[in-house]
Amino acid sequence: MSSSESQLARLLEPVQPGIERMREVMLRQLIESSHAVGDMTDHVGRFRGKQLRGALVLLSGEATGNTTDEHPAVAAIVELIHLATLVHDDVLDGASVRRRVACVNQRWDNQTAVLLGDFLYARAFALSTDLSSRLASRVLAEATRRLCVGEIDQAALRYDFELSQERYEEIAGAKTATLYAAACELGARYPGGREDVGSSMRQFGYELGLAFQIIDDCLDVVGDERVVGKSVGNDVEDGKITLPVLYAHKVGDDATRAAIRDVFTRPDLVGRCERLRGVCDLAAGVEFAMARAKELVDRARDRAARLEPSAHRTALMELPGFVLERRW
Amino acid sequence: MSSSESQLARLLEPVQPGIERMREVMLRQLIESSHAVGDMTDHVGRFRGKQLRGALVLLSGEATGNTTDEHPAVAAIVELIHLATLVHDDVLDGASVRRRVACVNQRWDNQTAVLLGDFLYARAFALSTDLSSRLASRVLAEATRRLCVGEIDQAALRYDFELSQERYEEIAGAKTATLYAAACELGARYPGGREDVGSSMRQFGYELGLAFQIIDDCLDVVGDERVVGKSVGNDVEDGKITLPVLYAHKVGDDATRAAIRDVFTRPDLVGRCERLRGVCDLAAGVEFAMARAKELVDRARDRAARLEPSAHRTALMELPGFVLERRW
Repeated sequence: MSSSESQLARLLEPVQPGIERMREVMLRQLIESSHAVGDMTDHVGRFRGKQLRGALVLLSGEATGNTTDEHPAVAAIVELIHLATLVHDDVLDGASVRRRVACVNQRWDNQTAVLLGDFLYARAFALSTDLSSRLASRVLAEATRRLCVGEIDQAALRYDFELSQERYEEIAGAKTATLYAAACELGARYPGGREDVGSSMRQFGYELGLAFQIIDDCLDVVGDERVVGKSVGNDVEDGKITLPVLYAHKVGDDATRAAIRDVFTRPDLVGRCERLRGVCDLAAGVEFAMARAKELVDRARDRAARLEPSAHRTALMELPGFVLERRW
Repeated sequence: MSSSESQLARLLEPVQPGIERMREVMLRQLIESSHAVGDMTDHVGRFRGKQLRGALVLLSGEATGNTTDEHPAVAAIVELIHLATLVHDDVLDGASVRRRVACVNQRWDNQTAVLLGDFLYARAFALSTDLSSRLASRVLAEATRRLCVGEIDQAALRYDFELSQERYEEIAGAKTATLYAAACELGARYPGGREDVGSSMRQFGYELGLAFQIIDDCLDVVGDERVVGKSVGNDVEDGKITLPVLYAHKVGDDATRAAIRDVFTRPDLVGRCERLRGVCDLAAGVEFAMARAKELVDRARDRAARLEPSAHRTALMELPGFVLERRW
């Protein structure tokens, strides 16, 4: 375990029993009598990730004095939806498109990814219809819709250097913060009522999720592949204009702007991300974006600080800082 | 309008007002403030198809004396789920893969198809959570899961000539008949209770849907592209072994079997479907498959015949024959 991983494990300590139950529910959902499906779900079942979204359902519930036997199932549904989006990202992202050229059975892999993602979404919604309250189905179907809109908008606005920071944040918010917000809202509100505390925790989740995405975008342009644990530079390859790049473009002179555009758009360019670092002050862009992430993280922490003191509140107050410091 | 189309329009006449309301609900769900999403949903909104599944919700409700104000919305949800599967089929099917080679922006199209399909699924589930009863959410989330399993199984069993007819029907049933069955069950049962009549109508839908898929599989190997209205021969190109081919393979001698396998698997073969007709008695396979479809259609009609006489019962009794005769 890296020091970041053990730090996160320590933060999530107060909800460890709930996380174990969430994982059990998830694994049960991945069992299928079909061998073909079973092979695939075995594979994705091994992928754990940080499971932050699921953990937030539990933490948000405990910290606001709202815990039910169904919270681990709600957390599992949130994680299944997140897993479905990751699986579909494998079809969408540029890395996959680039691998396609080399990989003869890419088509099969694409099929697999689309169908498996659909299966995971369906499992998640089917599980939500078994719960005693409809709130999880409602909040999560709506969150999934917004998440898709965010992804579609992002794809439509590739190579758009005139994107405003506000629009960038709307899209990053829709595609990432929406599910964080839904997780925190459901933790605080499920099975119903409690609109006020639900709304406040939804805000907390939104700020945390948006900060998470901004930092993700920074790591993609300046992160170390070995530390981040996935390939970096994907956004530049895919034409996604993220906050650090938007800023570097905005403050650059005409020559710098032209050079940035060239790095993004010239056909068959190799190593776009390294080249980008060479043609503009990307460090200034990252600094600007990280300052914005820090603002959001501070706001989220202040929000958590208003809750009654408890080990769970402490975890919610420390998570934003963890997100800000993360390098993976 | 072709004679088939006007025949179908005549059959659906008794639920025409409900179909209009279903279409209004669907179109409302396709409205999105995002321009990028709006462009896409405008595009798919123009695609109408036969809307048989939605119509079956309405017919099954009326014919069993179970009609509510929410039936058109339930029908719209069923059609949105069907639309989502069609959009994802564009990513999955061989035609798309073949077009990819020629089309420089295929990657964008693939992205579009995956995200738009996800959006449509999410819209469908979100709409179902607004209904007064949870039955539609439950039945349709489960149907969607089975549909995905059927698609995954089919993909995993490509090029498997040892497939039994039973297994072929299980898969065709899961991927197609499940949604027909859910539509008919919900028509008869929504908002709840009425398990007996729901179960009988679910069977009706399953038989009708399975017959529909078997006939689809026949049209793909012997249909006329101009009449069917979509490219044919896709299953052979994609390695999907359907009932007519399974039968031709089973009754063929060793040389015929080897020739069939060769047509399916030899790399870079052009015009596999025409070649297939040349190496085996595909007509006998189609005859066998159509006889099986007729069995199913007769069973469905007998089931509908047990309902109280009405214009809606008449439509349900005539629909199976229409499905059997269809050439599109």
